[in-house]
Amino acid sequence: MRLTRDPTFCFDVLRTDGGARLGTLHTPHGLVHTPAFMPVGTQGAVKGALFKDVAEAGAEIVLGNTYHLYLRPGDSLVARRGGLHRFTGWDRPILTDSGGYQVFSLAERRKVTEQGAEFQSHIDGSSHHLTPELAVDIQARLGSDVAMVLDECLAYPVPREQAAGSMERSVRWASRCRARLELLRSSSAAPVEISNGGQAQFGIVQGGVFPDLRRASADATQALRFEGYAIGGLSVGEPIDLMYDVVAETTRRLPPDQPRYLMGVGTPEDLVECVDRGVDMFDCVLPTRNARNGQLFTSQGRLNIRNARYAEDDGPPDPECRCYTCRRHSRAYLRHLHLAGEMTGAALNTLHNLTFYLDTMKRIRDAIAFGTFSSFKQEFLRSVSRPAHDS
Amino acid sequence: MRLTRDPTFCFDVLRTDGGARLGTLHTPHGLVHTPAFMPVGTQGAVKGALFKDVAEAGAEIVLGNTYHLYLRPGDSLVARRGGLHRFTGWDRPILTDSGGYQVFSLAERRKVTEQGAEFQSHIDGSSHHLTPELAVDIQARLGSDVAMVLDECLAYPVPREQAAGSMERSVRWASRCRARLELLRSSSAAPVEISNGGQAQFGIVQGGVFPDLRRASADATQALRFEGYAIGGLSVGEPIDLMYDVVAETTRRLPPDQPRYLMGVGTPEDLVECVDRGVDMFDCVLPTRNARNGQLFTSQGRLNIRNARYAEDDGPPDPECRCYTCRRHSRAYLRHLHLAGEMTGAALNTLHNLTFYLDTMKRIRDAIAFGTFSSFKQEFLRSVSRPAHDS
Repeated sequence: MRLTRDPTFCFDVLRTDGGARLGTLHTPHGLVHTPAFMPVGTQGAVKGALFKDVAEAGAEIVLGNTYHLYLRPGDSLVARRGGLHRFTGWDRPILTDSGGYQVFSLAERRKVTEQGAEFQSHIDGSSHHLTPELAVDIQARLGSDVAMVLDECLAYPVPREQAAGSMERSVRWASRCRARLELLRSSSAAPVEISNGGQAQFGIVQGGVFPDLRRASADATQALRFEGYAIGGLSVGEPIDLMYDVVAETTRRLPPDQPRYLMGVGTPEDLVECVDRGVDMFDCVLPTRNARNGQLFTSQGRLNIRNARYAEDDGPPDPECRCYTCRRHSRAYLRHLHLAGEMTGAALNTLHNLTFYLDTMKRIRDAIAFGTFSSFKQEFLRSVSRPAHDS
Repeated sequence: MRLTRDPTFCFDVLRTDGGARLGTLHTPHGLVHTPAFMPVGTQGAVKGALFKDVAEAGAEIVLGNTYHLYLRPGDSLVARRGGLHRFTGWDRPILTDSGGYQVFSLAERRKVTEQGAEFQSHIDGSSHHLTPELAVDIQARLGSDVAMVLDECLAYPVPREQAAGSMERSVRWASRCRARLELLRSSSAAPVEISNGGQAQFGIVQGGVFPDLRRASADATQALRFEGYAIGGLSVGEPIDLMYDVVAETTRRLPPDQPRYLMGVGTPEDLVECVDRGVDMFDCVLPTRNARNGQLFTSQGRLNIRNARYAEDDGPPDPECRCYTCRRHSRAYLRHLHLAGEMTGAALNTLHNLTFYLDTMKRIRDAIAFGTFSSFKQEFLRSVSRPAHDS
């Protein structure tokens, strides 16, 4: 067992099966079994699901968005409430992103310099300047269990030179983030309110789709000695096989005894493929966002509940699913709720999709434990990749 | 015990305390303890709450809206699914209204004749003709446990002559509804698909705020020998004390051994006042609709969660409430979710308001059982009617 700097945070790899790793992540708010999927709780809530249902679906950790929480209700207010756990009532582990991804998505409303990113709030147009140091301070106030460094996210494709320059800036920002956290950890009189003394910090590997840049980024980021490492800048439009290659290339270069987090990915197929390439943690809005649009992930592929063929279908969304929605409700009913614009429909779809994602992670972990990951993967991809049954 | 025509439906008055009655309503889908509050499930779902949470909040019966379900997904589709219980997955009792109230609310888009009400759908503008017979047929297909007759609903105020004419028409429509149900019950080859052989039918007393019209309506409606009686046409703008007087006047004229249902009422205070005047059943959109607008009903009065004074309030919405929202979340968090437009906020508010309403009914029943209803009422009205603490 390897203890990271803070004794309340550590990661154990219990078993490997090919590239796949079974592990446990210990945090100040409890244990996370890896490979893990983190439902996205953008503004301090998972859209369409109460936390009791998120927990019942099997989530052990959720993601909070620094950009949104910084703007509303504000990280200082959250700190005065005792941090994000107490404020939201979710008492299990939380990972927060750095806010960078949202800021870079603002397009015309942001300007990036070496110092940081200036942007205008999407809520009221007010001006803000997100620096690496501020990203650390905000997350310290929020008190998440895992904080992320501020990095620069690029679109796809970009020329090699641009990817290189951006990756190098991300390394410099990572260094500033690490220095800032060290300062907060060592200060007897911390300049910001610390809501979680055991907060870990993950570095982020960038470098676009260029293997040598990814390797250079992985090396430079590791030199800063983070508690874990993320792979950023993927799932931004590149071909899927290229993404898988970059993931494989990057994990190979990361320390074997620390957690690896693939940011913003992905489909159920992506989860299985990237676990196979050594990833331990994932987050993605797909299960929750698509639920609200009426798309259900099932053991037999995706299903668009608004399709007329479900109007009189008394079967459950997924016959193999154990969730409340599948135990209690039919496709016909969910279709009706969706067409009628009932928020209860979105909630039921969300509950199912989250359960499907989290059950998939459970099945992945079981397969690694039994040394059968390879055959599980083959069978899983065959099932979920069937020609969509309602296309 | 008095059995109504169908042996699966009956009502027992177990105890009275002043005008208040403690009872049990037996239906084909189980027991309802009265006085009871019925959450409104307009389109086959309670807005903002999953049925498991509606049940956990203490609901034993919900209301479905015939107008909405007739238009979408259609009563024939629901009948082919096995009725509203199977379609929605709610396996406890359901009462359906007749659709009349919604049709009369369409104002310019409807025309009433002796035959029925012609109206245009709010969804697609299509033309429909809701007759007393069709209202019975639709509800037979939906298969609710209690069906309501089609009645004419008037605004307030209306001249006495208009109220009298309308009341008399409602009696004629009630007679046609009763005849239609008798036909369906006696037909060996029913002209419509019957989803619930034990469905009861309630008549509705009209007559505006005129005591003699209410008495005449009560007498004429009773003569048709329904399984229960509702009081309609109230809470439409009349002064509150006038409403209470009409309720008292009407219940006095209704059979003591049959259930009495006050339609579309009301505030927590209304529930207690009207139980005191002999009402057994209530429905109202207030707890669910106001929840979505950020208004919470509490043991200390109403609370508008968007109020700035709650921004840093770590207390539960209602310190005396047992609901998930109050056990887990703070006013500060609910305010944040409301301002951020998170549907999870609406869901948490809904769960609380439903629990408050249903707990109030439980406390009412306990008070009647112990013969302490009068002191309970006094204490309750003092608590909830405090000057709103955030006005």
